[in-house]
Amino acid sequence: MADLTHIGPDGRARMVDISAKADTEREAIATGRIRMAPETLARALSRDTKKGDPLAIAELAGIMGAKRTADLIPLCHPLPLTGLKVEITEAPEGGALRVIATARTTGKTGVEMEALTAVSAACLTLYDMLKAIDKSMVIEGIELLEKSGGASGSYRKPASA
Amino acid sequence: MADLTHIGPDGRARMVDISAKADTEREAIATGRIRMAPETLARALSRDTKKGDPLAIAELAGIMGAKRTADLIPLCHPLPLTGLKVEITEAPEGGALRVIATARTTGKTGVEMEALTAVSAACLTLYDMLKAIDKSMVIEGIELLEKSGGASGSYRKPASA
Amino acid sequence: MADLTHIGPDGRARMVDISAKADTEREAIATGRIRMAPETLARALSRDTKKGDPLAIAELAGIMGAKRTADLIPLCHPLPLTGLKVEITEAPEGGALRVIATARTTGKTGVEMEALTAVSAACLTLYDMLKAIDKSMVIEGIELLEKSGGASGSYRKPASA
Amino acid sequence: MADLTHIGPDGRARMVDISAKADTEREAIATGRIRMAPETLARALSRDTKKGDPLAIAELAGIMGAKRTADLIPLCHPLPLTGLKVEITEAPEGGALRVIATARTTGKTGVEMEALTAVSAACLTLYDMLKAIDKSMVIEGIELLEKSGGASGSYRKPASA
Amino acid sequence: MADLTHIGPDGRARMVDISAKADTEREAIATGRIRMAPETLARALSRDTKKGDPLAIAELAGIMGAKRTADLIPLCHPLPLTGLKVEITEAPEGGALRVIATARTTGKTGVEMEALTAVSAACLTLYDMLKAIDKSMVIEGIELLEKSGGASGSYRKPASA
Amino acid sequence: MADLTHIGPDGRARMVDISAKADTEREAIATGRIRMAPETLARALSRDTKKGDPLAIAELAGIMGAKRTADLIPLCHPLPLTGLKVEITEAPEGGALRVIATARTTGKTGVEMEALTAVSAACLTLYDMLKAIDKSMVIEGIELLEKSGGASGSYRKPASA
Repeated sequence: MADLTHIGPDGRARMVDISAKADTEREAIATGRIRMAPETLARALSRDTKKGDPLAIAELAGIMGAKRTADLIPLCHPLPLTGLKVEITEAPEGGALRVIATARTTGKTGVEMEALTAVSAACLTLYDMLKAIDKSMVIEGIELLEKSGGASGSYRKPASA
Repeated sequence: MADLTHIGPDGRARMVDISAKADTEREAIATGRIRMAPETLARALSRDTKKGDPLAIAELAGIMGAKRTADLIPLCHPLPLTGLKVEITEAPEGGALRVIATARTTGKTGVEMEALTAVSAACLTLYDMLKAIDKSMVIEGIELLEKSGGASGSYRKPASA
Repeated sequence: MADLTHIGPDGRARMVDISAKADTEREAIATGRIRMAPETLARALSRDTKKGDPLAIAELAGIMGAKRTADLIPLCHPLPLTGLKVEITEAPEGGALRVIATARTTGKTGVEMEALTAVSAACLTLYDMLKAIDKSMVIEGIELLEKSGGASGSYRKPASA
Repeated sequence: MADLTHIGPDGRARMVDISAKADTEREAIATGRIRMAPETLARALSRDTKKGDPLAIAELAGIMGAKRTADLIPLCHPLPLTGLKVEITEAPEGGALRVIATARTTGKTGVEMEALTAVSAACLTLYDMLKAIDKSMVIEGIELLEKSGGASGSYRKPASA
Repeated sequence: MADLTHIGPDGRARMVDISAKADTEREAIATGRIRMAPETLARALSRDTKKGDPLAIAELAGIMGAKRTADLIPLCHPLPLTGLKVEITEAPEGGALRVIATARTTGKTGVEMEALTAVSAACLTLYDMLKAIDKSMVIEGIELLEKSGGASGSYRKPASA
Repeated sequence: MADLTHIGPDGRARMVDISAKADTEREAIATGRIRMAPETLARALSRDTKKGDPLAIAELAGIMGAKRTADLIPLCHPLPLTGLKVEITEAPEGGALRVIATARTTGKTGVEMEALTAVSAACLTLYDMLKAIDKSMVIEGIELLEKSGGASGSYRKPASA
């Protein structure tokens, strides 16, 4: 079984040394959703105004949140994102908004945490903007869909996971 | 139906004016969990070292993340937390770690978002610390359990929600 | 002539001691504009899409920027904003977008800097979003329109200033 | 007419993907000024003390502000500055302090926003330090003077702009 | 012996709940010094220029650093400083620069950490500005001189400590 | 004698231009300690709980603090750390906890300030966690042990410094 890389041979937490790794193009895609009552969902989707659109604001919060990843996650390396996209749409299965975030960098380590942080920040922002009408919303299904680039190879979420 | 308070009569996003609200003691409790393979869970729970313990590091990340709430969520008011606790244990239903965060303040608005952000930051940190051995973990069930204080009254998650 | 309050009797920079001042409701309104070519302005105003609207994104950036005021301005006191609104419209005199920001707090010192920072962040964001089509835009006319609350009394921009 | 690069084909805001762009040396120079009453200007220029000098503090605030650019401007890429200089002097035309900021990096995208943010932070800091004696100051003329490096070529402000 | 307040009865780290404590005026004074070679000290003290003065820049860095205290120290409560002063002078015993920081707030908990963080940030900045001519400088003697306000009473450093 | 690189020929503070320097692997090791009463030290070392361990929390604070170096130190370049380790043990000479931090990057400038900032943040956090039982602790001996990489060559602390 693989080791917990954030914990050294002496059991001490560390920011893993990646100095010797090559700079390569890396991409990660993560998803998540926020489940809510039908009336809340209808309200969120109506976006009947150009400004104050909850989905657009949450997409922006996801992009900005991804830039704070290394501030939020203690052992995460700081890295300069070269691209970030967050898309919020009605979840195909209904009853929820779905967030998909794609993060890219050219660096020595992957951008999974940036993609997952973007999804989390977007979901939290949707909760914040809609909580006046519905406090029982649930954030769920935040996971990594795929990643590519780097020595450890690509990952793709198993079909039935 | 209640209005979306973050959006003004002109449809424009705004940080809601709470100047006239009273300073009262407020508390919010939120929860969430991260589901993982049995071997990953065993590894996380073993914490066979005093340092580098993934649960302790994630609890700390949750506390620190809560202090960044207003940085992450665009229309959230900044407010000085007066107490914050994050507890991570094995989920009663098994197969997951459960996070519970309790946030307190004396202020003009509630601390739901701080409690939810603490849970999210803790879950993301657990993912980061365990991803070397398991990339298929899923963060789920992030929701508000209860809140108290303030004019809008208390909230408690419905039994079957 | 009044003293430069940020500089002590010994000529040393300081964050002025406001401990003894009363907590009062305070408000400040600031404005500014970004001048641009007619085609650029038409493009910005078209906002022919619900998402990606430059004006809505810049309004949000203004709100978030105001929360960073004490990080940006060395001797500025940190204070918890209780309300913030940023409005961007076509400037009445034409050829520019106009930003108006209103900041509120209940505290020991004024929120002029928060309002002015909101305007600046909104103007910079408009520049960023439109610079692919026009690099010669000019940010101008950033000033305080009025402030109220606090012992030093109200201020209103002179009619001809 | 060029496209708004921050907005994708689907009208959604995004941090533009620059992964495929080459790392090149880039420089941008921006300017701005803060207009004030003659007495205020005399006071600012007197800097009759080694410490608490408003010009030196504002220059430093400009440098520090440039490092926060990606925090302030939602769709701006984070990038590691390799050099930054801010100079504040009396404006040649009189009645104002003039700020000139030069930003440099070796990266995949330009540093216009860093230079413009440095100028804005410096102007806001001058306002903050001088507002006890003059609230009617106006920040104006913030614009890009020139940029170089990168595939899109150099830019120089037109003579009569 | 008193308890470690940051650690709960269950041994878990927490941000201590101070909700029930009264808002009182609080002050803390901390000191520290950076020891250096005589030539380095002479150079630092010469400040033969109005701008770029290492002492003035370090004083400012101390003030700004104090505002980041709750970001840096995991279990520290965020609190709005109402005053902060940092003074750097030649140490009375010679061979070093001495930093003294005074922090004030009106709040539910003390400002010792803010004063100590201001001293640390000032010392680190002095190291940064002088390291081109002397890498063997040593930061030492960072301690609390006195604190007042709050239920736990005042503290004053013992004469011989 | 070498020049103060942070101050230009005109005496103005600047972030030194390092654009032309090569990207090389760089490492810096710094140390420091916090002196305390024997009872306090015994308490800190007992860490009789897996969670809430003051040493583990301070190590983490050191790692996170290093990532904020460019935010804290005005003229310090932002740079992406590629590795960071903080170790806290009983000081060999007794009566204190000793912190050793090792920082690594691949970049155009050294990581001395990141290592020294990690040590400072760890010491401040130890103070914060232990101050309920001992306010007379003293932080001392913060210095650079060695650095390598870059054109200016390696540095090693002189044996008797």
